Order: sequence, then structure tokens, then C-alpha cells
Amino acid sequence: MSKTSPGPSLSQARLKSLKKLALKKYRDREGRFIIEGVRLCEEALAAGAEIETWIYAPSLLTRARGRALLDRIPPRHPALLRATSAQFKALTQVASPQGIACVVRKREQKALPSGISGLYLVLDRISDPGNMGTILRTAAWFGVDGVLAGPGTVENTHPAVMRASAGALFHLPAFENVRLEQWLVQQKERGFILIAADARDGTDVRELRSTGRDILVIGSEAGGIDPALENLMTIKTHIPGFGAGESLNAAVACAIVLYQLTHARQ
Amino acid sequence: MSKTSPGPSLSQARLKSLKKLALKKYRDREGRFIIEGVRLCEEALAAGAEIETWIYAPSLLTRARGRALLDRIPPRHPALLRATSAQFKALTQVASPQGIACVVRKREQKALPSGISGLYLVLDRISDPGNMGTILRTAAWFGVDGVLAGPGTVENTHPAVMRASAGALFHLPAFENVRLEQWLVQQKERGFILIAADARDGTDVRELRSTGRDILVIGSEAGGIDPALENLMTIKTHIPGFGAGESLNAAVACAIVLYQLTHARQ
Repeated sequence: MSKTSPGPSLSQARLKSLKKLALKKYRDREGRFIIEGVRLCEEALAAGAEIETWIYAPSLLTRARGRALLDRIPPRHPALLRATSAQFKALTQVASPQGIACVVRKREQKALPSGISGLYLVLDRISDPGNMGTILRTAAWFGVDGVLAGPGTVENTHPAVMRASAGALFHLPAFENVRLEQWLVQQKERGFILIAADARDGTDVRELRSTGRDILVIGSEAGGIDPALENLMTIKTHIPGFGAGESLNAAVACAIVLYQLTHARQ
Repeated sequence: MSKTSPGPSLSQARLKSLKKLALKKYRDREGRFIIEGVRLCEEALAAGAEIETWIYAPSLLTRARGRALLDRIPPRHPALLRATSAQFKALTQVASPQGIACVVRKREQKALPSGISGLYLVLDRISDPGNMGTILRTAAWFGVDGVLAGPGTVENTHPAVMRASAGALFHLPAFENVRLEQWLVQQKERGFILIAADARDGTDVRELRSTGRDILVIGSEAGGIDPALENLMTIKTHIPGFGAGESLNAAVACAIVLYQLTHARQ
């Protein structure tokens, strides 16, 4: 370590306790999670997330964007820790870590959305972290007003979800472990249209238009939407294919329907 | 193993040689690759792929769709091998393997497309296997006439690409290690429109219409399209966002532009 590298060294005991945040059990118990990468950490800073600890490795200092990020952290901050490359790799379990990570406190979950208009996304048992992260990133891009996930969906603070989301979670009202059926019934009574994305049935997505009160429901990669939820739907929609394959990837289907809905409300 | 399970046992020596197919070096040297999962194997069979060896584990027999697939393989076929659960897990390195895998011979790469019309997709250094597989699956769904990847793109037969592609490769004319600049120059001279997907510049994608001679170019997740290729482009297009984030995921952006192009040519 050079003399110009700020912060005390990361101890092995501290490393061991931070590594536990890779597991849901410890994230839930401690109410915090860890993110890795320059862009994700920048997003956390920009969004005013509550950052408890910063951990960096020497490789961060080799990139200008990395040095600039480090400069934004007060150098005598007690929670700025210097890791060796080996420690950092053990901490993040990423093939090519960017040398910066931070521990973020989970926000308290707010009350579920109960307004009378907007565009919401409901996720029923999305199990693949890459899909989940991509869906969150897409929802943020298209300005969705909130994302509500039921109990079977992979959690937002899973490291692979965070990576694929590119920091979208710091900008997006997101709700977990929601009792979807109950919320959907309430919203339907308020005049919302419930739209199910389906692999082959329903309205051609190109005919879909926003009503200003829309809820798009995306079902699990393997089995689609739970029948109890499916029964509540106002309409189904599908994306016509002109080639081969049984279906589109769930995150891709979600993106195309969101594109169509936000396009058509412009 | 029950007496009703067909095929000789997989030997440890054979397992060791099959495991090498997880590495590009051996896939290239041997001209074959391995796929896992009921759906992928069904697609390979349906598409008439040249299957050299089948490997199954007891768990396959617990699902009707798995048993049905096994029934379609001649039971005395010398290349049907029975693995233990532990062997199968070691072979496929998947968290929840479905108990069926097969070794497929790579097809000879055909001459590059040289027709005067169609919709083609060009991939410039797509590095994430999940993105690559999703792009191939989407391209097959929308009936793209061919996918051409340059040298820096993850290869089609990478196990994670195959999984994410859901078998699209068996239906899609796909070309690897293509000298993209040369091919794009030729196609442009033939009257093709070269369209670059960009994070923020260019025509609003909603105004994009197919000419019947279109080539969509998707650049790397980190850096976009190589400047040498970018200079050749006829137009750039971007997907307007109404919310937060620097960009969309590459596979999502690709899907939305393909949706728009195939929609607008209908």
C-alpha cells in the first residue's frame, strides 16, 4: 500500500462479517446490503443512500473515474477501509471487481401506492437475479411509478440484482413481499386496468394504449402468472413473433410492453 | 439405479473428458459443445442437430416431460449414458440441473449472408453471456434473417449463452468471428441501411421504419459501438426514457429496436 492511500486497512475479522452480507439471512437481520462497482456506488451517493462503510482496493486508483469517486469520500471518514486485492475479491465474489464497494442501509419500506393514477409494475415470482435487475433498470428508464414484488420474487438487494439493475433501485419506489392479490383487487376497484403479459394469448401488444391507470403484471420465467392473480386481470397482451421460439425472456417481454405503454401515453 | 434405467453408466474418465467442453479451448478443438436442460435438448432434437452423446441423471425420470424426452432416444443407442446425480452436477455446473444433457457437433459456418434484402443483427463485443443468449432468443422470435458477431463477442456455444438463448441458435443463422467492417461496407453498397442503437443520440426509435434492407448494430455493454463501425452507420437511433438511469441493458435496447422494426414492416 502506498502512503497516499487513505483509510485504515480492512481487518480479517471485519472482512468475515462483511462477507456475510452476500446471504439474504444476514441482509435481513442487519438491515443492510453491499454493492460493488464504480457506477453503482456513484448512484448510491447521488441518490443520498445511507452509506455506512466504504471499502476500496488498490485497483480503484488506476482509473480516473475511480479516483474521482474516492475523492468524494471524506478521507478521514472512519468508515473508509482499504482492502488488499485478494480481500476485495473475496468480499465481492465478482470475476473482475472494480475495487470499490459500500455497505448501504436498507430503507424502511413505505406504505403501498394508493393513488388513483399512474403506471405500476407487479412481479410475480421472478426468480432469476439478472432478469430482476434488468426489469428494475427498465422500469426506472421508462419512469414507472412503482414496482411491487410478491413473496416468491428474488429480493432487490441480492448482489446480482443490484449489479444488473445498474442502480435503478436508488431511484425507483420498489416494494417487496407484497400481498399482490389484495393490492391488485384494491387498485382494480379504484379504476386501474390490470394487464397480464402472456406468451401467446390476448390483445396484440401493438394495440395496447395507456389509460393513465395501468398495472402491468409479469409472471415467473417458468410458469407465468399465478392463476389466482390471472383471474383478476382486465386484459392479457402478447408480443407477436415472426420467427421461432416458445416465448421471449421475461425481462424482454416486460420492456416491450412498457415501451408500448409509455410510448402510447405520450 | 433401477433396472429400468436405460444405458450404460457414465465412467469417471468419460465424465472428465466431457467436463472439458465447459472451456472454449476444448469446444474449438473438438468442434462440439454441451447443452443442458429438457427444453434445450428438445430444441436440439427438433432442429435435427447432430447429437453425439446423451447423458441423463435419475432426476430426469421424476418429470413427465423428462421421461417423454428420454423415450425419444433409442434405448440401446451406444451414446446414451446414465450419470449419478453427483456426476451430472459436476458435468453441468448448474445449481438445479434438469438431469438431461447432450453433446452436439458444431455446424460448419456457412458463407456470410449476401442477399439484397432482409433484417440482420450485428453484435460488436457483447461480452455478457446472459445478454448474448437473450439477444439470440429475441432475434429468433422476431424472425431476424441472420446474426453476425465480431471477434470480441462471447461465443454462441458458451453454456450460459445456450441456456439464455432457450435453443434459439438451432433455428437462427448465426455467424461468429465475422470481420464486421468489411461485411457492413459490402451490405451498405448493396443498399442496406445501417442502424446503430445508441444510448442517447439519433432518431427517436418510435420514428424508425423498416426499409426491408436493415442491419441493426448493437455495441458492447461498456463502451458501445467501435468508432470504425460507427463511422459507417446510416443512422443512429435511441429509445427515449421518461425516468432515471444512464441507459438500458443492451439486450433490452436490442429487443425494443427489433420490435419497432418488425412492427413497422408489418
